[in-house]
Parts: sequence; structure tokens; C-alpha cells
Amino acid sequence: MSEPEKSPVSAAETAGESGEQSKEEDLDLDLASIFVSDAQFNRNIFFDSSPQAVRLYILYNHWGLQVAVYFFILVDLSLALFEDPAVVLLPLWATMSVELLCILVFIARLTHYAKVIPRDKFWKDPKNLCIIAILTLTLLDMLIYGSLRALDCSGVRWSRVLRPLLLVNITEGRRLRQAFRSIRNALPQILLVFLLFIFSILIFSLMALKLFSKRGLKTTDGAPYFTNFLQIVFDLYVLVTTANSPDIMMPAYNSSSIFSIFFIVFILVNVYIFMSVFLAVVYNNYKKHLKEEVRQLVRAKRHKMARAFAVLQQKSVEGAEPVVTHDRWSRLVRRVRPDISHAHKELLWSVCDPEEKGAIGKLAFVQLADLLNIEVITLKQRPHPLQSLWPTLYLSKPSRLLCSVIQHRGFIILFDLIILVNAVFIALDEENPLISNSEWFFLALYLLEIILKLYVHEPRTFFSRHNFWNWFDTIIVVAALIATIANSALKSSSGYTSRQILDIVFILRVLRLIRVVDSINRFRAIINTLIRIGPAILTFGQLILVVYYIFAMVGMELFNGKVQFFGPESEAPERLYCGNPLLKDTAFALHNYCKNNFNQVVSSFVLLLELTMVNQWHVLSSGFSLTTHSAARLYFLLFHITVVIIIINIFVAFVLEAFFVEYSVEKSDLQNSVEKKIEELQLGVKQEKLEQNLVNSMETIDSEQEDGQKKRPALLFKIASKRYRTVDALIQRMFENDLDPEDFNENEDETNGNFSNPAFNL
Amino acid sequence: MSEPEKSPVSAAETAGESGEQSKEEDLDLDLASIFVSDAQFNRNIFFDSSPQAVRLYILYNHWGLQVAVYFFILVDLSLALFEDPAVVLLPLWATMSVELLCILVFIARLTHYAKVIPRDKFWKDPKNLCIIAILTLTLLDMLIYGSLRALDCSGVRWSRVLRPLLLVNITEGRRLRQAFRSIRNALPQILLVFLLFIFSILIFSLMALKLFSKRGLKTTDGAPYFTNFLQIVFDLYVLVTTANSPDIMMPAYNSSSIFSIFFIVFILVNVYIFMSVFLAVVYNNYKKHLKEEVRQLVRAKRHKMARAFAVLQQKSVEGAEPVVTHDRWSRLVRRVRPDISHAHKELLWSVCDPEEKGAIGKLAFVQLADLLNIEVITLKQRPHPLQSLWPTLYLSKPSRLLCSVIQHRGFIILFDLIILVNAVFIALDEENPLISNSEWFFLALYLLEIILKLYVHEPRTFFSRHNFWNWFDTIIVVAALIATIANSALKSSSGYTSRQILDIVFILRVLRLIRVVDSINRFRAIINTLIRIGPAILTFGQLILVVYYIFAMVGMELFNGKVQFFGPESEAPERLYCGNPLLKDTAFALHNYCKNNFNQVVSSFVLLLELTMVNQWHVLSSGFSLTTHSAARLYFLLFHITVVIIIINIFVAFVLEAFFVEYSVEKSDLQNSVEKKIEELQLGVKQEKLEQNLVNSMETIDSEQEDGQKKRPALLFKIASKRYRTVDALIQRMFENDLDPEDFNENEDETNGNFSNPAFNL
Repeated sequence: MSEPEKSPVSAAETAGESGEQSKEEDLDLDLASIFVSDAQFNRNIFFDSSPQAVRLYILYNHWGLQVAVYFFILVDLSLALFEDPAVVLLPLWATMSVELLCILVFIARLTHYAKVIPRDKFWKDPKNLCIIAILTLTLLDMLIYGSLRALDCSGVRWSRVLRPLLLVNITEGRRLRQAFRSIRNALPQILLVFLLFIFSILIFSLMALKLFSKRGLKTTDGAPYFTNFLQIVFDLYVLVTTANSPDIMMPAYNSSSIFSIFFIVFILVNVYIFMSVFLAVVYNNYKKHLKEEVRQLVRAKRHKMARAFAVLQQKSVEGAEPVVTHDRWSRLVRRVRPDISHAHKELLWSVCDPEEKGAIGKLAFVQLADLLNIEVITLKQRPHPLQSLWPTLYLSKPSRLLCSVIQHRGFIILFDLIILVNAVFIALDEENPLISNSEWFFLALYLLEIILKLYVHEPRTFFSRHNFWNWFDTIIVVAALIATIANSALKSSSGYTSRQILDIVFILRVLRLIRVVDSINRFRAIINTLIRIGPAILTFGQLILVVYYIFAMVGMELFNGKVQFFGPESEAPERLYCGNPLLKDTAFALHNYCKNNFNQVVSSFVLLLELTMVNQWHVLSSGFSLTTHSAARLYFLLFHITVVIIIINIFVAFVLEAFFVEYSVEKSDLQNSVEKKIEELQLGVKQEKLEQNLVNSMETIDSEQEDGQKKRPALLFKIASKRYRTVDALIQRMFENDLDPEDFNENEDETNGNFSNPAFNL
Repeated sequence: MSEPEKSPVSAAETAGESGEQSKEEDLDLDLASIFVSDAQFNRNIFFDSSPQAVRLYILYNHWGLQVAVYFFILVDLSLALFEDPAVVLLPLWATMSVELLCILVFIARLTHYAKVIPRDKFWKDPKNLCIIAILTLTLLDMLIYGSLRALDCSGVRWSRVLRPLLLVNITEGRRLRQAFRSIRNALPQILLVFLLFIFSILIFSLMALKLFSKRGLKTTDGAPYFTNFLQIVFDLYVLVTTANSPDIMMPAYNSSSIFSIFFIVFILVNVYIFMSVFLAVVYNNYKKHLKEEVRQLVRAKRHKMARAFAVLQQKSVEGAEPVVTHDRWSRLVRRVRPDISHAHKELLWSVCDPEEKGAIGKLAFVQLADLLNIEVITLKQRPHPLQSLWPTLYLSKPSRLLCSVIQHRGFIILFDLIILVNAVFIALDEENPLISNSEWFFLALYLLEIILKLYVHEPRTFFSRHNFWNWFDTIIVVAALIATIANSALKSSSGYTSRQILDIVFILRVLRLIRVVDSINRFRAIINTLIRIGPAILTFGQLILVVYYIFAMVGMELFNGKVQFFGPESEAPERLYCGNPLLKDTAFALHNYCKNNFNQVVSSFVLLLELTMVNQWHVLSSGFSLTTHSAARLYFLLFHITVVIIIINIFVAFVLEAFFVEYSVEKSDLQNSVEKKIEELQLGVKQEKLEQNLVNSMETIDSEQEDGQKKRPALLFKIASKRYRTVDALIQRMFENDLDPEDFNENEDETNGNFSNPAFNL
């Protein structure tokens, strides 16, 4: 269906005259809104442009379906809890049928996707092929495993390793794919340094072999010291991770101080130089790659916005620059973001159309995706409900005095002091009745504080989405109140306290103390930075989950049951060597590491976390290599290289980069223009003075209303410049400064080219 | 002595006519050359401008005196080896008199400095006051300690802590001071994050106390688990360093898997988030501060060059721009850098004066300091000595064939293979006579390789200063030959092998294998980067030395003799608990850490290195806190915070930054202009093809000479662009790109201002 030539008459005027045209108009808006929201969320899906496909595509992007996909992936992943070796063993038919259900859901989702995008694009996209392969292999594995089990043979559920890869390959896993891509692109450089590093370890090992093997030295547990070349290589590799320092050096050092030189040189070269170089190489490659990705994202975003413009454009006069009218623009925005207020929308329009022409050109239109991503908070200046109910009482002198007392800095300091005193009481022994009863007193104080604050502040403002600490406070205090009451009730009725409830009470009490941080401005700044980086870190959470899951599945197949844990109460003699005689008197058993095993998925994950922490990983690895084969060390080495050398370094690189952006870039140009507009329109509030202002302006409004003079607008805006709606926004801001100068021009050309030759036809 | 108005006649023409004028000319050159070399080496000493002071200042900067100062500081520092508690105990009078000698040297140096710079500047400079304070306090301490010892009382040599501070406060310690300054400037930010981090640990500790103290859990060695608040804080701090992971978690984890959540959250927040934030804050502040320092350095450098120009300037015509003539310029360069060749000097001149006017203006003159810092290697194209001796033989067909065989890539690969085979032979047991004799074979091969290479390459070129690997090869092979011969001689004469000589032989043999790295181009690139960063890392070496020395001195006073080491051969029962009954059955004694003590300076340094490696530092610290007081942990905590959190992070920041510079900036503009000039003059050689080129061009020269056609110049230049003469050059290059655009203008104004109002009068 080819898009008809737009008539010079604005669509708004002709709307309603013909049902056909209105329907077409509707389709246009649908399409444009898809382009805008694709641009806004950086979705890069080349969807089919037929009306059905567009409707299907809107459905495909529905948040409900996306949540459902993640939910079923989660279900699929957590099946590991119930499959043999299980935390809670469920019969095979149960897990199998749940898995089958998941697979059906994924197939349905993929079919949906196939209907949205053109067929040839679908089969060219590696991620679709990956999903198909994963699902096919899983079904095959289920069939084989099911039949083997039916025949009472043992089988390996090898396809479980593939499950987390679904997270990477679904449409929504774009950021995760990006992370994997950046790792893959850094690999050649990392490999180069890694080879050099291994070469260095081999050279040092050879030297150690020649220096120490003939000296008849013994380690602390009487084993010969540095006599086997492969063992030396492993020991020195462990020394690089610092896990066996200084033990590995002690026998040589005890025999002569001179030998410490060997280890000092080794440590300097391999621990300090090479590890820094690894970080540098990973960081450098990560940054380079990210920059390229962001450049492409920005290009794709502008391209999509240009296409949306092409759909909505109208020409007032033949030959003039095409424009989008205010009416169409505003219907588009309403469709893309139904949640934003009319005032907010008008604010954005006035940023786009500063000269109030009533229509905007392509350049201004392209900004829209970014404008929608700037979080503008609309603060309705509502009077306090008490003021509406009893205005005379609420506005009386004593009430006003109370309000100003509560808003005084001293009030905050007083409660900070109370929190500190509370901390001391918490630390003291709670079996003293005076102290355990003091808890009621403190709870009452905290409740009083919240009530007093609610007396001053309008409740909906107080509990608005962005007042993190108010929410935190209230939830913690109320939860603590409920838990404490439940605990006391239980105690007085049955005479004993429930350990679980008590634990919750304790945790809530301690968490309350965190609030002190918010009172100190400079701490708040750091915390805010951390919170801002938070969502971006979640990508790394998924990355770690994928890697951990794969290693856990492999580990469970390899090492299941090799190490037994007998529980802290057990008196069985086997508990001293983790139920495996091979572990008798080994460091693994002596350190009481029996619970660090691969017998179920939870303990596997904890074990992998311990391996990530590096310390004692050689002891853990020795436990499993002793009970299986010394080649088992390869598994642990591989884990170390993958997670510690690569992923943790990328994580550090990311945090470093995010911090630098936070410190150097203050606000983007676009944010500044929105903020300037807010200021121009005298609609702004300063973040710090927000709470005081609310009350003050409330009072001013009253007095002004009394004077009958100019009315203040009833709406206030502020930019939540310190929060990012999407992770991409943060990443894009990272390189915005580098990108903008040359890239804007380049993109302009491209989008212009795209505009003059619209490849997209409705 | 005020500078007389320069006559428009060039000084060179009038030189020699009057002794007075020539002497004055000489003084001018002295002064200008001081400014230039100050600018070149970034010395910022405001010296007096009287002729005597200038002569004294030249003497002050003499390399001999500088080396002497470092030598005496080294002597002073190494006195710790001979003072009680000593490695080799010398009588008190001996160490005291050496120390007195050192102090006298430092006083002499300081007096010299006082004579060079104006009196008021001297007393305003904190580093001079620091040195005076250090020396006074040291003398006082020596007096007190000497008298106490004479009275047979025990005393504390507290002034030893001050010794390393001399390294920081001497004039030459500029870079070290800069490093300390950048640490000091980063401190407020670090402190803020550190307080938040400590707060987080306290909150988690409180939670741990409430959760675990009443559960009656026991650690592996039967101690109650998490019952004492301070102990919990310490344990959790140690967990942040990962040193007691996973042991500290095991009792809680064994009792219930749920508790692992507590530790996982703790680790995520404190280990991964906070430690990355520390690195980010340290890095960010370090970079910011360094940028500012470099900006000032560049400004000071240009200022000094402008002053040098003011001294040498001449006006050809009244009212014209002042210039410096080629003659004066070249005498100046000869004075500043007597070692560079005439050709090199002319090359630099042609870069400054591309239009061959015979005189340069201020802008071109100011470049000189940077030009002198660019290392241009002059390669004299000498014919091979054998060619001069037996030209017919050397240029005969078989000889030429031999040369081309040796230069063939296969020759290098062949010897790489030989090295690999050699590595296998080294790894095998050397008691097998076949294998021990194979060593002679390999040695002969390596010697043959060197001789063959010398046959092809001109010896002085082969052993030029920049051919690191040729030097490395030859030294290693010759040393191995000597050591192997010595060993065999000893064996055949006395019948046993000396362990020491054998060790050296082994080390040399293994070191030989390193050469393989050089054959692989991509490895060579990494190695070159590391070598380039090398000198800059030395500043950190000094920094670490200062911090280590101070901690070692304090540690020796606090913990001397608390832990005894009995030697590996000892059978004394005390060796099982390090001679201190308090250590019986502690982890410290069980791990056999007795030699990790503060009983002398060498073992203290090794212990501090182990603490820097972090692993097991809690065991080491517990050893010393058990034998003294639990407050001793503060010493170890302080060391961890100072060295691991601050200094190691700065080190990582430095390596990261240096790597990024290496990867991003290829060459500076100035280097490019020199290189372009070299190319223009057809004097260049490409680095990679250097060796082949030398021989090829040698042959070409011959053939050309035979043909009697145009002669090639006998000199070749290349820029050692991959090496930096000074650490500052590297640091400046780090921020050059950021600095140049705005800063050049600013400096131009400043230097112009300085020029029009010359504050400097001879």
C-alpha cells in the first residue's frame, strides 16, 4: 500500500469528514509512533510495513508479552532447582512438561516475530537461527534423556547448558548481545597479552624447576616442593591470582632469603604489570567497540525518526519544506507515551517549536525520541488535604510554627542523632528487657517522624515516584512495626520467639540506619551516582548469570556427588572428609569446605561466586581434582580466565567509564534546552529547595490570592537529570561528546538522503 | 649587571674582536643554555642571575653531583641493614659516623643550593625547610640515642622514619613530589568514599552481629562465630580484601544456605562496587591533577625558553622582530647537548628554520627544548670492517650468499626452533649426561649465531645503544659460557658443583629463551609498550620505597623480636610456634610464617610485599597482634589502606593512562615535523627494514660508486619515536592533545608579556 500524496490541507482539518481517511490517518500514526518508540528504546527491528504486520508488531512490543517471555525464561532456568541433582527433586514428567511448556511459549513468540518481519530478514538473522537451534537441540535432548530414563539408563541433560543462551538471543536481549559482542571483539587483543603472560609463567616455572627441584625442600604439609613442572606452572598461576601467597614462597624463602628475589620479580611482572595490562587492554577495546556501537545506534535512531517524519509530513505550500503540525505531533506523542501529562507535552512542543510557528521541520522532529527520554517530573501544586478540610486550623499560627519546626534543619539532625543512639541500642544485647523494650520507643519515634512529615507535605508529593528515601523510610518502618508486633504476639501467645521473624526484625532495624547517609549531602551524591549506574550494571548481572549458569551446569555434570555435605549437626565420621575418603586430611576438608560442592544448583552458584572472589580457589579446585582427575583443574582455570580476567575487568571498565562520564559531563545539550525552556516559562523548581518551596509557594499562592494579584501557575516541572530512563541513554551520553561534532553532519546527510528517497512505503 | 642593548650587527661577526665582549657572550650563552636545559628537563629552580650564581648553578646541575646525592641517600637508607635490629650488625660508632657523613653531604648540597637561589626564595621553599627539619631532627635523635646507649639505656631511633623523606625533598625528587601531591589532592574524595565504605561495613557488621551471634555457631577452629562487634568489623574488612573468603562465610553457610544471601550482598556491594569506585575516584582525581600539573609545566617551559630567547636575541633592523641567528643557536645547542652530532644539529635547525633565513624568531626558538627531547638516532653508514680488510673475500659470491642466508627469515625461525628444543632439554633432568652435555652444543650454536650476525652487520651498528635484544643476547650467551666453563672446571677439579654457580647457569639458560618473544612482531609491540612505560613506573618504585621504608621502620620498632625464625635445619621445639608460646597452634605458626617477621629490614620488606599482595594478610596481622596487642591490627589496616587502596590504585591508573596514550596518540606534531624533515632530506630509514637496509644500501653504495653516479649521503637518521628521554615527556604527551588548543594561545600571551617586559636582567 503506497502512501498517497499528502494534500496541502492539514489532516486535522479534514479529519472526521471521511471514515476512510481517519482510518488511514490512524494507521499513519500507528506507524509513526512505532518508529518513534523504536528510536526511543533503540529497538532495531526491520518490521514488515503492511497494516497487519504493524498491528502485530505493536502487540509484539507490548510490555506484557515481554514480561511473559522473561518470566518463562526464568522458569526454564529455575528448572535446574528441581531437576536431578536437585534442591527439591520433582518427578521427571513434571519438569519435562514445564520445560515443554516453556519451549512452546518460545516457539509462539518466535512465530509471532516471524510474522512481523519479512521472511528473508528472519532467516538471515543469526539470533533467530540460534533460538531455533537451541529449541531443537533441547527437544532432542529431552527425547533422548526421557527414553534413556524410561529404559533405566543414565543420561546427561547436556542441553541445559543452552538455556541461558535464550536470554542472549531473544529480541529484548540487545544490550546483553552488545556486551558479548564487545567481549568477542576484545578477545584477539586479550589473547595476545594472555599468550605473553602464559609464556612469562612458563619461563618462570622453568626457572623455578631448575632452582628448587634439586634442593629437597618440602612444603608445610611435607610434600616435595617445586619438583613437577606442570604443578609448578599451576602453582605460579595461582600465585598470580595471589590465592596462595605467601605460602607458595615460604619453603624457598625459609631456605634462603635470596630466593625471595625470584618471587618478587615474578610478582612484579605477572601480578602487577600483566594484570594492569589486562585491565588496560580490556578497557581500551571495550571503549573502542562501545563507541562504534553507539555511533551506529545514533545513526539508526535518526534514521527511524526520519521515517516517522516522512509518514507524518505535510507540505503547507508546494515546494516548501515539509513540516509536522502541532496537532499531528501531539496525537503522535499521546500514542507513544499515553502516560505523560498535557502540560508536559506542551512543554516538549515549546522546546521543539520555540518560535511558535505551529509546525516543526525535520530537524526539530528528530529530537523527539531524545526529548521523550528526558525525564521531566510534573509536580502538581496541590494544597495539603488538611488545608482543604480544616483551613483555619491548618493555617493557624501554631500549625505554621509546627510546619517550620519540622522543616528546620535541626529536625533532620535530631533524627540523625536518634538513629545513632538507636544504632548503639541495636548493638547492645537485646536480652536486657530495658533495651528490648526501647525498640518500641524508637519505632514510635520513627512513626511520629513520618506522620509529622506527612503533616507538612502533601502526601502524593511525599510519595511521588522519585522520593526514594521517603518510600524507603516508610516501608522499613511499617514493616518493622508489623514484624515487631508479630514477634511480640507470638512470644506472648506461645512463649517462644520465631527465629525467622526475629531475623527479619533485626535486618529491618539495621536497614533503618542507612537513612543517615541521605542526610549528608556529599554521601548522597556518591549514592546517587551508584544508583544511576545501577540499571546499566544489571546488564552485567545478566552476563554473569549466563556464564555462571553454563559453568554450573557443566560443573554439576562433572562433579555431582564427589563431595558430600553432612550438615552442621551430623556426627558421621565421613563428615570430616566430606564423605569422600580421597579428601582425608586435605586442605579442602580441613577448611570445612564440604558444602562448596556441585551437588545442586544453589551450592554451585555459591561455589562459583567463591571462585570469582579468587581467594582459596586453588584449594577448592584441588578438592574436585583429587576426587576426579587432575584435568579437573582445567575447568577451574577456564572459569578464572573467563570470569575474573575478562568479565570482571569489563565490569571494572564499565564502572570506571560510567564514573568518568558522571564526573565530566554534567548535562546534555537537549536537557539543557528543556531546562532553559522550563526556566523561561517560570515553571521550574530547584531540586534542593523542592520541599521548602512547595510549602512556601503554597503560602505565597494564598497571600497572592488574597491580594488578588497575578496567579502562579499551578504546575511545576523539574528535570530528573540525575536519572536515566534507559541504560542506552547512559551509554550514549558516555560518548555523546566524542560523537556529536562529526557524526551529526554525517547523519544529517544520511537521513536527508533517506528523506528525499523514502524507501519506506505504506 | 644589566643586559646591554644588542647591536644590530650579529655577535658572531664581532666575536674575537674584544675579549670583554667574548666573555660577555660566553656568559649569555651560559645563561641561555641553563634556561634551555631547565626547560628541557622541566627543572623549576628560580636561580640567582649573577654570574657566580649561574656558574654555581651549572655545577649544581652536574650529573656527578646528582648521582652523588642519590648515592648518599642510598647509603643513608641502607644503614638500616647494619643498625640494630640488623642483617649484619655493625658497631654503633660505625653506622653513626656513616650517617654523620651522609648528613654532612646533604648539608653541603643544601648550602650549595642556598648559594644558587635568592635568599628569600630559599626560605620560602617548603622542601628546603623539610630537609633542614629532617637533618636537625636526625642529628638530635643521634645525640639522644647515642647518649642513651652510652648510659646502657635502650632508646628508639625514631628519626629513621624520616630518612626516605629526603628522597622526596631533594631538588631532583620533583616527580616523586608530584606523585605525592596528586595523592594528597585525591585524598578528600577518597576519604569521602572511604567513610561511606566504612559506614557500609559497620551496617553489615551490625546486621551480622544480630543475625549470627545468638546462633551458637563455631568457626573451623572452634572459636565462637561473629559474637564480638569489633571482631566482626575486622573480619568483614578482611573479607573485602577477599583474604578470608570463603572461610569466614562457611559456618553461617553450613548452618543454612539462606545466609549466603547476606554474604553475596556484602560482596557485591563492598568488594565489587566499592572497590571499583575507589579505583574510579583515584583515577579520576589523579588524571585531573596531573593535567593541571602538566599545564603548569608546559607554561613554565615556554616561559624559560622565552627568557633564553631574550638573552640571545638580536635585531637585524631596528623595529624588526628580534631573532636568534644560526651561529648563536648552534653554539647554544653545542653547549646544551655537547653529545649530539653536527648533522643532527643541522637537522634540528632545518626544522626550526624551514625557509633557510639563517635566523629564527621566538616561536621557532621555543620549540628547541622539545626538539632536543626527541631522540634522533644518527646511524653512520660504515662499511663492515671485514670489507675494508679483505674486500674481495667479503664481497665474493659465497660471502654474499652467506649474508643473504643469515638475513633470511628462515634463519630467525631456525634459531627460534633451536631455542624451543633447548627449552625441552632444560626442562629435562640435567643429571642425564647426554642432556648435560647437550648444553655445550646449544651454547656453541648460540655463539655461532652471534658470530654470523656480526659477520653481516657492522659491529658498532649491531651493538648500538638501541639494539636492546642484541645486547641482551650477547651478554646472556657470553655469561652462560663463562659460568658453564667455571662450573665444569670446578667440577673436574674438586669433584663437586657449586650450587651458586649452577643456579646462575640455570637462570642464564632460561633467560636465553625469552628471546623468542622478540621474533613475534605482535609480542614485540606489547613488550615495547611495557619498556616505554618502564621509566615512568620507576617513580612509583620510589614512592613504594618511601612508604615501605617508613612502615618497615615503624614495624621494626613495634614488632622486633616478637616472632623468631629458627632456620629450616633447626630441631628446636620452639620453631613450631616461632619462638613465642603465644603463637602455639595459631594459623600463623601452622602456616610456617615464622620468617615473615620484623626482625630486620630485609624480612620486613618481604613481609610488606606479602601484605601488598593482600592474601593471608589477616593471618600475618593476627600473628603480630597476638604477640603484642590487638591494636597492632591498626598498623596492618593502615598499611592496607595506604598501599593497596591508594598507591596500587594510582599505579593501575597510571598504567591504564599510559596504555591509552600508547594506543591513541601515535606521534606528536613536533616529532612528525622532524620526521618529515628527515624524509625531505632523504636521510631516513624505516625502523623495520633497518638491518636489511643497512646491508642493501651498503651494496648499493658500492654499485653506485662503481657506476660513479650520485652518491648517497653517508648518514642516516631515524627517530626513536618509541622511546622517551624523560618521564615528563610521556606524561606531557598524555595530555598534550587536551592541552594544546587553548593553552598555546594563553602561553603565547604570557610569554609575549614576559618578552616585552624582560624581568630578567643580566
